[in-house]
Amino acid sequence: MKLAFIGLGNMGLPMVRNILRAGYAVTVYNRSPGRCDELKSERTVIAESAAIAVAGADIAITMLADDPAVESVVLGSGDAADEGGHGVIAGLNRGAVHLSMSTISPSLSRKLADAHRRAGQDYVSAPVFGRPEAAAAAKLWIVAAGSTESLARCQPLFQVLGQGAFVVGTDPWQANIVKLGGNFLIASMLEALGEAFALMKKAGVSPGQFLEVVNGSLFKSPLYENYGRIVVEEHFEPAGFQLRLGLKDARLVLGAADGLAVPMPLASLIHDHLLAALARGMGQRDWSAFTQVLAENAGLESQSP
Amino acid sequence: MKLAFIGLGNMGLPMVRNILRAGYAVTVYNRSPGRCDELKSERTVIAESAAIAVAGADIAITMLADDPAVESVVLGSGDAADEGGHGVIAGLNRGAVHLSMSTISPSLSRKLADAHRRAGQDYVSAPVFGRPEAAAAAKLWIVAAGSTESLARCQPLFQVLGQGAFVVGTDPWQANIVKLGGNFLIASMLEALGEAFALMKKAGVSPGQFLEVVNGSLFKSPLYENYGRIVVEEHFEPAGFQLRLGLKDARLVLGAADGLAVPMPLASLIHDHLLAALARGMGQRDWSAFTQVLAENAGLESQSP
Amino acid sequence: MKLAFIGLGNMGLPMVRNILRAGYAVTVYNRSPGRCDELKSERTVIAESAAIAVAGADIAITMLADDPAVESVVLGSGDAADEGGHGVIAGLNRGAVHLSMSTISPSLSRKLADAHRRAGQDYVSAPVFGRPEAAAAAKLWIVAAGSTESLARCQPLFQVLGQGAFVVGTDPWQANIVKLGGNFLIASMLEALGEAFALMKKAGVSPGQFLEVVNGSLFKSPLYENYGRIVVEEHFEPAGFQLRLGLKDARLVLGAADGLAVPMPLASLIHDHLLAALARGMGQRDWSAFTQVLAENAGLESQSP
Amino acid sequence: MKLAFIGLGNMGLPMVRNILRAGYAVTVYNRSPGRCDELKSERTVIAESAAIAVAGADIAITMLADDPAVESVVLGSGDAADEGGHGVIAGLNRGAVHLSMSTISPSLSRKLADAHRRAGQDYVSAPVFGRPEAAAAAKLWIVAAGSTESLARCQPLFQVLGQGAFVVGTDPWQANIVKLGGNFLIASMLEALGEAFALMKKAGVSPGQFLEVVNGSLFKSPLYENYGRIVVEEHFEPAGFQLRLGLKDARLVLGAADGLAVPMPLASLIHDHLLAALARGMGQRDWSAFTQVLAENAGLESQSP
Repeated sequence: MKLAFIGLGNMGLPMVRNILRAGYAVTVYNRSPGRCDELKSERTVIAESAAIAVAGADIAITMLADDPAVESVVLGSGDAADEGGHGVIAGLNRGAVHLSMSTISPSLSRKLADAHRRAGQDYVSAPVFGRPEAAAAAKLWIVAAGSTESLARCQPLFQVLGQGAFVVGTDPWQANIVKLGGNFLIASMLEALGEAFALMKKAGVSPGQFLEVVNGSLFKSPLYENYGRIVVEEHFEPAGFQLRLGLKDARLVLGAADGLAVPMPLASLIHDHLLAALARGMGQRDWSAFTQVLAENAGLESQSP
Repeated sequence: MKLAFIGLGNMGLPMVRNILRAGYAVTVYNRSPGRCDELKSERTVIAESAAIAVAGADIAITMLADDPAVESVVLGSGDAADEGGHGVIAGLNRGAVHLSMSTISPSLSRKLADAHRRAGQDYVSAPVFGRPEAAAAAKLWIVAAGSTESLARCQPLFQVLGQGAFVVGTDPWQANIVKLGGNFLIASMLEALGEAFALMKKAGVSPGQFLEVVNGSLFKSPLYENYGRIVVEEHFEPAGFQLRLGLKDARLVLGAADGLAVPMPLASLIHDHLLAALARGMGQRDWSAFTQVLAENAGLESQSP
Repeated sequence: MKLAFIGLGNMGLPMVRNILRAGYAVTVYNRSPGRCDELKSERTVIAESAAIAVAGADIAITMLADDPAVESVVLGSGDAADEGGHGVIAGLNRGAVHLSMSTISPSLSRKLADAHRRAGQDYVSAPVFGRPEAAAAAKLWIVAAGSTESLARCQPLFQVLGQGAFVVGTDPWQANIVKLGGNFLIASMLEALGEAFALMKKAGVSPGQFLEVVNGSLFKSPLYENYGRIVVEEHFEPAGFQLRLGLKDARLVLGAADGLAVPMPLASLIHDHLLAALARGMGQRDWSAFTQVLAENAGLESQSP
Repeated sequence: MKLAFIGLGNMGLPMVRNILRAGYAVTVYNRSPGRCDELKSERTVIAESAAIAVAGADIAITMLADDPAVESVVLGSGDAADEGGHGVIAGLNRGAVHLSMSTISPSLSRKLADAHRRAGQDYVSAPVFGRPEAAAAAKLWIVAAGSTESLARCQPLFQVLGQGAFVVGTDPWQANIVKLGGNFLIASMLEALGEAFALMKKAGVSPGQFLEVVNGSLFKSPLYENYGRIVVEEHFEPAGFQLRLGLKDARLVLGAADGLAVPMPLASLIHDHLLAALARGMGQRDWSAFTQVLAENAGLESQSP
C-alpha cells in the first residue's frame, strides 16, 4: 500500500513516525519545508507540493491546523491561491482515498467529499482525540465516517495510529461533528468546574479538595482529574491546547449547530467566556484558562504570576 | 454511645438499619408515624417527638427532605408550629452532637450551627452522595464539616454508613456547599449531554454511539455512562431523583452563589431549563428529563410515550 | 380623611410634603426618628410607633426600603422583634386601608394581604415608578392593584402624588409584579446598550454617536436618552439608584418568575452581571454601572477615574 | 449626475421611484428581470448586467438581500460565477462611487472597500433603518460611513431617500456595524418584552395593560408601542421582517462581535431563541415571533390559530 502524508505539525510528525515504524513507505509534504528535515534520516520521500506527494498513493492522509489550511492544500484554493493545480485533488489517482484527520468544520468536510466524488476519488473523515504525546504513543482515539469500503482500506492505518477507532456514520462530515461534540463536552466540564471552584474559594473550601470529593465519589474520571488539576493549580502554560484554538473549535460547534438549527446555549456561554479570555490577552495559554474569567467575575484575583 | 435518628424516609430507613446492624441502640422519630413500624421488630425505641428521641443521646442524626422539614424538626418552628419545644435543640443535652445529613442550604446550616452553639451543643454537617440503594449497601459518600472533636466522635458512624468520608472544613455549612457543588456538576453534565445529543440527532448520528465514543475515549466515567444511558433511552420514569427536587437544589446553589457574590451563569442556565421542564409538566420525572426541553427547542419530538 | 404615613426616606419625605400641601392632616412614623424633624414645622403629628401612627387612620401609607423593613413595620416581626404588637396591623382599625407603595416581592404582598384580611382591614398595593425628584414634583407613575372599593378611596391620594395611576388587577400582588417587570425592562435596556457600546468602541465608533443614531431613528425614548448618556459618560456617581438595590430587584424578579414557573434567561443574565459588578466593588454606584463588567469582558478599560 | 441602481426588491423599487421623482436619470439592473418592468413607463434605462448598468455612472447604488447577493453583483463572484467580469467593479469608472445600502456584514464591507480602492473607485456604506413603507415615503434613516469627499457627493441622494443621515465614521464598515447594533437593540427589546409578557400572563396581568403601563410611564417609545402590540396580539403574519432574515442579522452581529473580541451574551441568547423558533417552523413569520419560544418554555400555549 502506497501512502502520502501531508502536515508535519505536532500531531502529524509523530503519526508519520508510527506509520514508518509499521513498515509503510510514505511520501510526505509540509507547507513549511523545514519540518520535513526531521524525517530525512528515515525511509521517506519528501515532495515539493501536495499534488506531487499524493500522486500514485492509495491513501493520502492529511493532518493540518484548521479549515483554511486543509482547504488550501486539498483544493489548492484559499489564501495560498498559488497552490491551484498543486492540491491533493489535482494529484490523487481516481479510486484512491483521501483520509482527512484534521479537526475541521462539518461544512468543509461536506465540500471536500463532494469535490473528491466529482474527481472519482473517495473521502474518509477521521479526526482524532488525543494530544501529541498520545499521537507519539499510538494511543489516539479515532472517530471515522465514510463508505464501508474505504473505511476497510484505512483500517490497518487506524491500528497503527491509535488505540481504537469508532465508526459513526457513512457521511464523512458526521465524524467531524462527533469530534466537535467531544470537544464541546470537555469545554462544558471546564465551565462547570470553573464556576464551582469560584464558589468553593469564596466559601473557604479548597478547590483541590472539592475536586477530590466529586471525582472520588461521583465522576471517577481521569479527564476530570487531569483538567481539574490544571485549573486548580492555574497551570496554563505551557499550553496543552491553546485557547485561541479552543475558541476556533467553539466557533465550529456553534456554526454546525446553527446550520442544523440546534440551539446550544451552553456552547454559546462557553464561546463568550473563551472570547472574553482572548480579549484579556490569554489566547496563547491553555484553553482551560477561560476559567479565570469566571474567577475574575466573582471578584477573585488570579494566584498565577 | 447512645444514638437518635430522625427521618425514616427512603434514605433514612436503610441508614438506621445499617446502624442497628453495627450493634448500636437507636431511638427513632419520624413525623409520619407509620414509617417507624418497619423497624418495630428490631432493637429500636420509637419516640413521640424529636425532643424525646434525642434526650440523652450522644449523637442525634437527622436525615430529612428539605430546609423546612429540617428547620421544623430542629428548631420546632416553621410550618409545624406546634412542635415548639419539641424540637432537637430543646431535647438535646449540652455537649451532645447533632449530625445533620440532609441536603439543605448553607444558610440554614449556619443558622442551626448558631442555635446549637447557643444551647451548648455541637453541630456537624455531613450530607451524602448516593441514592437509596447506596444507603442500603452502606456505600454512601459522606461530605463532612465541623469541629475536629465532634467529627472524631462521628467517625465510627461514617464507617457504618458509607464507603468514605471527606472532611472539607471546620464550618459546618461548608459541607453543604460542597454537596450542592457536586449536584451542580452533575446537572452541568446533563445540560452538556442534552445539547450534544440534540446536535447528533439532527446530524444523523446515534446519541448512544456518540456517548460510547466520548465516554470510551475521553471521560471514562461511570456517571456519564449511567446518566447518558437514561437520557439516550429517555428512561425518565420511575425517577431516580425527581426533577422538582433537582430544581430545589438548583435554587439552593444559586442562592448560595448569590450570597457569596459568585456569578454562575451555567447554574442559571440549568435552573431555567429545569423550570421550563417543570412548567411543561415534567416535575415528577427524573431530573435528567430537562434535556427534553433542549431537544424540543431544536425541533425534535420526544420518542417516549 | 385621616391619614398615616410610615417611612420618611428619600421617596417618603417628599410624598408626605405633597400630601400636606394638598391639605390633609398626616400622622407620621419613621424608624430613625431624626427624619421626622424635617416635618416638624408643618402640620403633622409624629408618632412613637407604627401602631400608634395608624390608630384611627382611614388610610395608612407605607413607603419603605425593602421586604424586611415592610414586614417588620407591618407585622411587627422580622429583625426588629421588639416591634411585636406595635405594627401597622396591630394598630389599624377594622375597615381601614393599608396603602403599600414600597417595591416589595409579590410573595410578601400576598402575605400582607392575607394578614390584613384576617384583621378585617383592606390592603392596596401601589408601587411607583420615579425617583426622588419625581416624587417631589408629584410626577410619580403609580401602579395599583386591590379591591375596586379600596382603590376608589385611595384615588384622591394618587392624584396628589403622581401624574397617573394604572390599575392592573384586583389582587394586590399583581401591582408588585408589574413594578418588577418594569424594572426588568429597564435593566434589559442597560444590558443591551452595554453590549452594543462595547462593540462600537472596539469598532472605533463613538458610543455617544451610536446612541444618537439609534435613539434618533428607532427608539425615540427619553429613557434610552437619559440612561444611555449615563453609561456613555460613565457617570455612575452619585447613584440615582444604587446597584445593590438593583440587584435586590433582580432577585425579586427571578424569585417571582421561579414561583410562577416562567424561565427568564435574560433576567438571569442581568442578575449575573449585577452580581459580578457587586463582587468587583461597585455596589454603591448607579445600577447602570454593571455595563462596566461587559466592557471589561471585552478587554476595554474604564475611562472613569 | 448620472446614477445606476441595482436591486429592485421591496426596498429598492420605492427608492428608485423617489430618485426618479427628484429628477435624476437612473440606469437600473435587477437579477430577476421581471422586476424592472414595473419601472418601464418611467424615465429609466434597463441594463442587461450590473457592469453595463454602472458604466459611466457617477454613483452606483446597490440595495440587495444579503452578503452573497452583494458579493456576486459587485465582484462577479460567488454562486453566480458566470457574472465574472459583469460585476459593479468591472463596469464602474475610476473615480466613481459605489454607494452600498444593503445590510451586510462588516467583513464583506471591508472586502468591497479594498476591492474598490484597488480599482481606483470609492466605496460608501450607507445601510438604512426602515421598512418598505418608510422607503416609499422617503422616511428612511440612513447610517453612512466613508471618505468625507464621497459622502458629500452622496448627500443629495440621502435627502431624496430619507429623513436623515448619520455619518458615523470614515471606514465604510463602521456604518454596517452601527446598523447591526441597531437591529440588536430591537431584538433585545423583543426578548425583554417576551419574557416580561410570559411573566405577566402567568400572574394574571394582561400583557397589553403591562405594555401600556411601562411605555406610558417609562419608555414613551413608538417602537415599544408598535412591536409590543405585534407581540401582544401575536400578529406575526404577514411578516414585517421575516424571522429567517432576523436570524441572519443575529449571525452577522455575533460574527462581527467575535471578530472584534466582544462577548455579547444577550446577542447569543437572542440567536438561540431565533434558532429555536426556526427549528419549530416559524422562519416565515415576523421575527418578533421568537417570543413564542419564551412563552412555550413557560408552559403557555399560543393563542394564535
